[in-house]
Amino acid sequence: MKKTLDLADIYAPVRDDLEKVRESLRSISRVDFPWLSEQLDYVVRGGGKGIRPALTLLTGKFYKYDLKYLLPMAASVELMHTATLVHDDAIDKSVVRRGQPTINKMWGDEDAILLGDYLFAKAGEFVSDTESPRVIKLFSQTLAMISRGEINQLLDAFKIPQTREGYFQRISHKTAALFCLATESGAILSKAPEKSVDNLREYGHNLGIAFQIVDDILDFTGTEERLGKPVGSDLTQGTLTLPALLVLERLPGNNPVRRALENKGDRKYVEEAIRLIRNSPVVDECYKIAEDYCARAAANLKDLPQNDARRSLTDLTDYILKRDI
Amino acid sequence: MKKTLDLADIYAPVRDDLEKVRESLRSISRVDFPWLSEQLDYVVRGGGKGIRPALTLLTGKFYKYDLKYLLPMAASVELMHTATLVHDDAIDKSVVRRGQPTINKMWGDEDAILLGDYLFAKAGEFVSDTESPRVIKLFSQTLAMISRGEINQLLDAFKIPQTREGYFQRISHKTAALFCLATESGAILSKAPEKSVDNLREYGHNLGIAFQIVDDILDFTGTEERLGKPVGSDLTQGTLTLPALLVLERLPGNNPVRRALENKGDRKYVEEAIRLIRNSPVVDECYKIAEDYCARAAANLKDLPQNDARRSLTDLTDYILKRDI
Repeated sequence: MKKTLDLADIYAPVRDDLEKVRESLRSISRVDFPWLSEQLDYVVRGGGKGIRPALTLLTGKFYKYDLKYLLPMAASVELMHTATLVHDDAIDKSVVRRGQPTINKMWGDEDAILLGDYLFAKAGEFVSDTESPRVIKLFSQTLAMISRGEINQLLDAFKIPQTREGYFQRISHKTAALFCLATESGAILSKAPEKSVDNLREYGHNLGIAFQIVDDILDFTGTEERLGKPVGSDLTQGTLTLPALLVLERLPGNNPVRRALENKGDRKYVEEAIRLIRNSPVVDECYKIAEDYCARAAANLKDLPQNDARRSLTDLTDYILKRDI
Repeated sequence: MKKTLDLADIYAPVRDDLEKVRESLRSISRVDFPWLSEQLDYVVRGGGKGIRPALTLLTGKFYKYDLKYLLPMAASVELMHTATLVHDDAIDKSVVRRGQPTINKMWGDEDAILLGDYLFAKAGEFVSDTESPRVIKLFSQTLAMISRGEINQLLDAFKIPQTREGYFQRISHKTAALFCLATESGAILSKAPEKSVDNLREYGHNLGIAFQIVDDILDFTGTEERLGKPVGSDLTQGTLTLPALLVLERLPGNNPVRRALENKGDRKYVEEAIRLIRNSPVVDECYKIAEDYCARAAANLKDLPQNDARRSLTDLTDYILKRDI
């Protein structure tokens, strides 16, 4: 079996440039306004895996790798991601994220709304530095799609029955859209031919879907320490993800997932659902579906020039599946 | 004394095009997604005076009046305005706006956050149709400025003492920034010379400051029916506006404004403050300051070509002062 690389290895072709992106992100918290500065620093330093900005840089590596445009784009996708997390946490009333109290927990919902808006604005400033009307339009369309995905999630909360189609449409909007933006913009800004733009967008879509499925699995199979938030958060908030959906498909009668939803995410039933899912074939089945998307993502790369970025993008399809965080 | 025109007369040079903007705005609610469609329809039809989109069209009338770019820009400024209102109402827990229940009152804070985000995204899509990186960057910078203004308002809520400088900085960010975007973008997109761009931006700034001062006066002197929301809302929410600030300056000891702030917007003290302000010279003094900004705005137009748009922009400086809604 192939050794799964860690992210530092995968990011190697763009390591220094990713550091520049992080520096750009840190720079936005240096504003002459202590309150804002403190909160920006808090969310930006909270950090994440940096997959989205890395995708923009890596997908920019096949044709004209122009940092003048790729750097602000990479910063922009990461900031848009951060902004949506800040708003989502306020909406979901989440109290912890990445092992830290959320903005809404620390400073209240009002601050979370305004900080999120400010982050969207800064993301918009970065994307305007790409000077590409096409990419700028994609940016706004993506934001609209993410909002739609989140709206759907809110509307579907605690609802039974739900379909797999509904789930895939929701995660396509909520998560894969931003992966698409990251990869498609990398392609466009490096002047890739249209065929490659299509392939890299598709790669982003497939990788994004797989990423979210694995996220949804880990929400049941992970540990609070590694997840940085309580296990079973999705079900507690009434979000029916793939593992839970498969349980409902398999056990049409009464079962802990159904009881958790019918009782507004009551922790007792969520715990039961976690135990059930961990010990059921549903987890493997979900991984199988995620693997399938990863295989499609890897296949999307086949016509691209062979280089170290292509190797990294391929490795990423493997990493996504095997990560535990 | 000169007759004050009504808005329909002032908008005459761009009447048909403003109708096209309204049609664009209505069109965004025709989405295949009933929940979103209903809420979009609700906020977009709620309508407003349409001053911001009218400013973009009117300021676009001096050089190359190109509707291909001016229409989406006008729609964009109006949508950004609407998005900020939706978020502000959620933050301020306002229950009524323009005589209708607010989105947060009707559907909850979560919906208000997501609907606002969706509207920002649609505003971003419209602005990207201008294909002007300069204007797109201004759009994002304006959004950041508005967020900063709102953050400041939140931070300063119920605080004593506050300075006039603080007030002017806040309304400069919160309100005048969007007026500037409306006028500066109209100038840029119609290929105005840089000197005219500067003049029209300054016009927007001065008009925006005057507009907000008058808004802040009307919040004390208006009627609930005309305002479409309770009189004294600002003070109830702890926002210290110019009339209230002048009362604190004039009466440094105990007074109803101070008591209202110290008692977290207690309605009894707010009512007392309303009565005091209505019967005090503070109202005239505030109007004097607003007039001064309007005079500056009118002066900003002096080097522009003489045409019907210039007459309308001049009339607007008069209208702003005399409006009661």
